Amino acid sequence: MDRSAILIIADSESHSDLYYSTKFLAPDPFIFFQIDGRKGLIMSDLEIDRARQQARVDEVLSYSQVEEKIKSGGTAACTPLDVIDAVLKEKGVRRLLVPVNFGIGHADGLRSRGYEISTKPDPFFEERTVKTPEEITAISDTQRAVESAVEAAIEVLRGATVRNGTLYGNKGVLTSEDLKKVIHLKLMEQDCIGQHTIIACGVQGCDPHNEGSGPLYANQSIVMDIFPRSSRSRYYADMSRTVVKGRASDGLKRLYDTVLDAQERAAGEVRNGANGQEIHQRIMDRFERAGYHTGMKDGRMQGFFHGTGHGLGLDIHEPPRIGKTPWILKTGEVVTVEPGLYYPEIGAVRIEDMVAVTETGCVNLTRFSKVLEI
Amino acid sequence: MDRSAILIIADSESHSDLYYSTKFLAPDPFIFFQIDGRKGLIMSDLEIDRARQQARVDEVLSYSQVEEKIKSGGTAACTPLDVIDAVLKEKGVRRLLVPVNFGIGHADGLRSRGYEISTKPDPFFEERTVKTPEEITAISDTQRAVESAVEAAIEVLRGATVRNGTLYGNKGVLTSEDLKKVIHLKLMEQDCIGQHTIIACGVQGCDPHNEGSGPLYANQSIVMDIFPRSSRSRYYADMSRTVVKGRASDGLKRLYDTVLDAQERAAGEVRNGANGQEIHQRIMDRFERAGYHTGMKDGRMQGFFHGTGHGLGLDIHEPPRIGKTPWILKTGEVVTVEPGLYYPEIGAVRIEDMVAVTETGCVNLTRFSKVLEI
Repeated sequence: MDRSAILIIADSESHSDLYYSTKFLAPDPFIFFQIDGRKGLIMSDLEIDRARQQARVDEVLSYSQVEEKIKSGGTAACTPLDVIDAVLKEKGVRRLLVPVNFGIGHADGLRSRGYEISTKPDPFFEERTVKTPEEITAISDTQRAVESAVEAAIEVLRGATVRNGTLYGNKGVLTSEDLKKVIHLKLMEQDCIGQHTIIACGVQGCDPHNEGSGPLYANQSIVMDIFPRSSRSRYYADMSRTVVKGRASDGLKRLYDTVLDAQERAAGEVRNGANGQEIHQRIMDRFERAGYHTGMKDGRMQGFFHGTGHGLGLDIHEPPRIGKTPWILKTGEVVTVEPGLYYPEIGAVRIEDMVAVTETGCVNLTRFSKVLEI
Repeated sequence: MDRSAILIIADSESHSDLYYSTKFLAPDPFIFFQIDGRKGLIMSDLEIDRARQQARVDEVLSYSQVEEKIKSGGTAACTPLDVIDAVLKEKGVRRLLVPVNFGIGHADGLRSRGYEISTKPDPFFEERTVKTPEEITAISDTQRAVESAVEAAIEVLRGATVRNGTLYGNKGVLTSEDLKKVIHLKLMEQDCIGQHTIIACGVQGCDPHNEGSGPLYANQSIVMDIFPRSSRSRYYADMSRTVVKGRASDGLKRLYDTVLDAQERAAGEVRNGANGQEIHQRIMDRFERAGYHTGMKDGRMQGFFHGTGHGLGLDIHEPPRIGKTPWILKTGEVVTVEPGLYYPEIGAVRIEDMVAVTETGCVNLTRFSKVLEI
């Protein structure tokens, strides 16, 4: 026999393909194989009972039983690769298909045992990009938690007082960290874990990955980007809003209106069959036409220098991407639409909704208003 | 020239070696190289400013500038491997040392470009197992948050009423989920993220990785295992306690005392030069002598069927391991000591402290009392 198998060795906590395929969550690496559509696991004693109950697979083998069998044949030391080899050999497998992130250590060991290994670029399970109604519900549920958390943060901003341009809450100077705590506690109440939440005021927001720190100021842009994971469903949601406590300058208002217009037009262009690359390029063109140039200035990137959107689900960033590379959007894909413009002299604006692609357009999964001045 | 380089391509959010070596946290993959002790990064436009400010490396190269240079040479399409190849070639590198989890996709691409690749088993950066005083402080700080969270949970248990053996709080039946929420909110107040916290009552606790769900009961073992990460320092802590609301049976009391004795003796054996395998084996022997047999019974593992301890730091599980494989402990390593015994007919007991290895013994980083009946 010369059969082919899919093989993944990973923990399903970090390897979403593995979780997607097994619906079994484990913090330590385990072994997954799939032969002719039939899924199997090789599990340690510690996890085998739970795997038998929870994993959506066709068979669960005991690592220690395979190990024992090998040792009874006279082999003293027995590695995980010996165990995998014994199982695959018995099933007549000689060819393996693995994800591109499959570890070179295991790959080299398996090749030296005679296996032919080929890789498949992401998405490893293509069907993962197209969400089922259950998955869209899970993402939407996480999004409801995001919205309640951002609402709580905006309430705090609304209630803040301004002294010499600095915001004050009831415990003194109001900081990015304070707002993040409000958001994270509100999310945790709903079993959602927020990490790397961005509350970036003024020039901090001009570095799109700066999470923000220190005092918040009136009359400056505050970029809020919140993307927690539900620890119940394990599905992410993602939303960005930009607000100003007080009054925005005319320059900042125009920047905001330009981004808002681009965001809404781009969302309007999302539909089954649309090319993400073209949607992204049209935003770039619109920004340039509006006089907002992208490029290096004073030693830093300014303008619009990130992608327009990304898929999300079990990972916060997963295919598809709406950006520089082509991608034909399909019904059921869930993507963010999040253009931004960043100029240290004016401020930072990013506005982001999540949408689900349909035959004729998209459904906006985000229900939160877009208001600059609060 | 024929120089050798360390190469890692990963996101430092999940790849702790990469974070350890650069102290730069990014959610998307970036490129790290180290040549003769000199560290470098190749960063996207989106991350380059932040990397230049935060990363503890000797040089930060711009991905897009290298890409531009390659394209100006007439190459139309340019992949990440082309960019890496261009940088390494210029530096005279032909041999690469990578972690065992380095992706086969990149590895095959680099080999086909003529690079010789070898791997190094974990720990990739050996010095990572030995914690600096700053790291021990970070772990201890996270542990203080754990203790305040467990104290809060125990207060809720103390305040619970018992009706027909079931625990009731002020909102009705008290569940595992309720206690986990108390713990997670208390942790989040201290910027610590708890995930997969275990509150497992009665027979649920007999599967050591069952997180627990549903009503809590009086007079049964409740295993509490809490291992959050600080989102400030990124260091984990880990503690387990077993409690009974009400009265434990004599069998459960004896089980508890046996585990407690084993836990304290094992911690007493931890010192520079001690072999983790022997510490583990002595616990196994003591349990057997006390009449607690480990093995399969009624189709499930019973007794003591997990390791005695594990290192922790930037990962929740990292070398060293105190278990079936040998490891000579070194001063500065931080390990858990967490024997357990699991018998569905009696209950589940696990008791876990974290200790830092010293020349002559260890320092217990855990300051929480061990009391069965509450």
